[in-house]
Amino acid sequence: MSNNTYSTFTDVNSLGEFGLIDALTKDHPAVQASTVKGVGDDGAVINNTNEVTVISTDMLVEGIHFDLMYTPLKHLGYKSVVVNLSDIFAMNAVPSQITVSIAISNKYSLEALKEFYEGIYTACKMYQVDLVGGDTTSSPKGMVISITAIGQAKKEDIVYRNGAKKGDIICVTGDLGASYLGLQILEREKQVYLAHPGVQPELENSQYLIERQLKPEAQAGAIDYFKKMNIRPTSMIDVSDGLASEIIHICQQSGTGAFIEEGKVPLHPDTERTALEFNLDPITCALHGGEDYELLFTIDEKDLDKIRFMPEVFIIGEITDAKEGITLHTTGGNIHPITSQGWNHFRE
Amino acid sequence: MSNNTYSTFTDVNSLGEFGLIDALTKDHPAVQASTVKGVGDDGAVINNTNEVTVISTDMLVEGIHFDLMYTPLKHLGYKSVVVNLSDIFAMNAVPSQITVSIAISNKYSLEALKEFYEGIYTACKMYQVDLVGGDTTSSPKGMVISITAIGQAKKEDIVYRNGAKKGDIICVTGDLGASYLGLQILEREKQVYLAHPGVQPELENSQYLIERQLKPEAQAGAIDYFKKMNIRPTSMIDVSDGLASEIIHICQQSGTGAFIEEGKVPLHPDTERTALEFNLDPITCALHGGEDYELLFTIDEKDLDKIRFMPEVFIIGEITDAKEGITLHTTGGNIHPITSQGWNHFRE
Repeated sequence: MSNNTYSTFTDVNSLGEFGLIDALTKDHPAVQASTVKGVGDDGAVINNTNEVTVISTDMLVEGIHFDLMYTPLKHLGYKSVVVNLSDIFAMNAVPSQITVSIAISNKYSLEALKEFYEGIYTACKMYQVDLVGGDTTSSPKGMVISITAIGQAKKEDIVYRNGAKKGDIICVTGDLGASYLGLQILEREKQVYLAHPGVQPELENSQYLIERQLKPEAQAGAIDYFKKMNIRPTSMIDVSDGLASEIIHICQQSGTGAFIEEGKVPLHPDTERTALEFNLDPITCALHGGEDYELLFTIDEKDLDKIRFMPEVFIIGEITDAKEGITLHTTGGNIHPITSQGWNHFRE
Repeated sequence: MSNNTYSTFTDVNSLGEFGLIDALTKDHPAVQASTVKGVGDDGAVINNTNEVTVISTDMLVEGIHFDLMYTPLKHLGYKSVVVNLSDIFAMNAVPSQITVSIAISNKYSLEALKEFYEGIYTACKMYQVDLVGGDTTSSPKGMVISITAIGQAKKEDIVYRNGAKKGDIICVTGDLGASYLGLQILEREKQVYLAHPGVQPELENSQYLIERQLKPEAQAGAIDYFKKMNIRPTSMIDVSDGLASEIIHICQQSGTGAFIEEGKVPLHPDTERTALEFNLDPITCALHGGEDYELLFTIDEKDLDKIRFMPEVFIIGEITDAKEGITLHTTGGNIHPITSQGWNHFRE
């Protein structure tokens, strides 16, 4: 289990809001030329010449989106940033700035918050974005994180969810379902730990799955590749709620159908093995698990040759007429409708 | 007391996240030409030609920043937007878009949320901004609101906190301290109500103060005036934490001192009367109360004539050398240092 304790304890109340913000942000100068003014005024100032601004925001709530019992604060900070940057990449844009707001109970020390911000800044460095503002406030109960990511793109490069058309190839940038199983393992070991506090958790064979859950990455490389190869996907979305939910979004907004070939959906060997341990079908984890932060996108057939050289890409299906519906072609030769209802059912 | 109940009750859980967002946002098309894409994709897209983007964000937590017992949800939505727009105006920029994220417990109905969003959209209409994105999620306890406001300005028009210089005139756009006293009245009546639920609250003579607390406005008119009159304040900040805290921010960031003349600080007659009822000095409410959302700004002496014709402005002091400190010249002829420590002390 995670051990969010510190040898030094600086009471955050002793610093005041402005002292706290200063303590957390002072060592991190801006790296983006577009950052005119970061933390420290009423607003941040960003210079966009000849490009459009893309904005995305997410809220993460303790007890709903994360459990501090098995989530180290540094990982939480890192993941909070990544899930937002993932949305900017999913527009075929490049993130440049973030704002971070947190509500925390008074029980947190400055050292604990610094750990959280170390994760935030590690992600900022990894993806070359500047933290330019935010808000810190107290919370009567539980931690709440709200991050807004800002990115830029040429207007004609932006990719929406609504541009897929019949015959387009459906691609995904990496394996699916692993993050969901990582979460199942962490939840299982938490229950074991609560029942028998002395027992060491069994996490040795699950490192890949747990890392996919606790420290996901956003697909910056895919966006770079599109730019280099002069590819513009016809539609794109990031896989945060599961493949089923995302392909439904694309089809609904594009007015199309689609089929996914079960045998083509990339699954990590650990995902297949662990799904069976939990009596789950691996494809169900890919369809309804979520939090993979891979990019699901469609391309025109004519771009197929360009995509084949992409370092990490899997062709998993095709866009069809709306009347064909959204279906899974199983390895057994059957055709099943893909529904998002599966998600709620799955989680219950 | 506020009566956040509804004759219809649509369980938000029955809608799902996407159905909920759609139900709350569908009737409100974009009004800003710069809004290329609003709600409904991974990110919003904003077009800024030849201007810089200004971003500000705030987080509001139930039990810390608001009390739903006396805050109607519609007012809460309105105020949540206004406090963010106020930060954009304080940069001498014009707000154009907002994102709204909320965490709420399952007990809220769609009707209650629509009331909250009605306040959000009323503010959007009032200030001509578009809601372009956000996040809705559940909260195990309490409501949390996070709003990010986006605005534009010419780079050379942006006003920071750090540009004040010796001899500059200190101005404020309206009366101070009223919002704090409005809050004191609401808190007092809440206690009376809790002790004697049948008793009607005594709010008749306090409408001005309560409105300043529950439905503050941002100072769009001041920014318009600066533009028309070709004035660029040397520094500016909005009064969210009280005059003392804000003048200290300006002086610290500008490397100056300042004096404020007590007799010049604008106080509404209801503020003066009610402060005495609560055994408070009215000037203390202005210095340390906060939530006034007036603009505190400094101008070069040469612009004094232009400012005199501003519809709502009060000249309250002057910027000095840093070594003179930050002081209050009292009506009794004394000089007191202005400290922000007063705030914590005052609130305890």
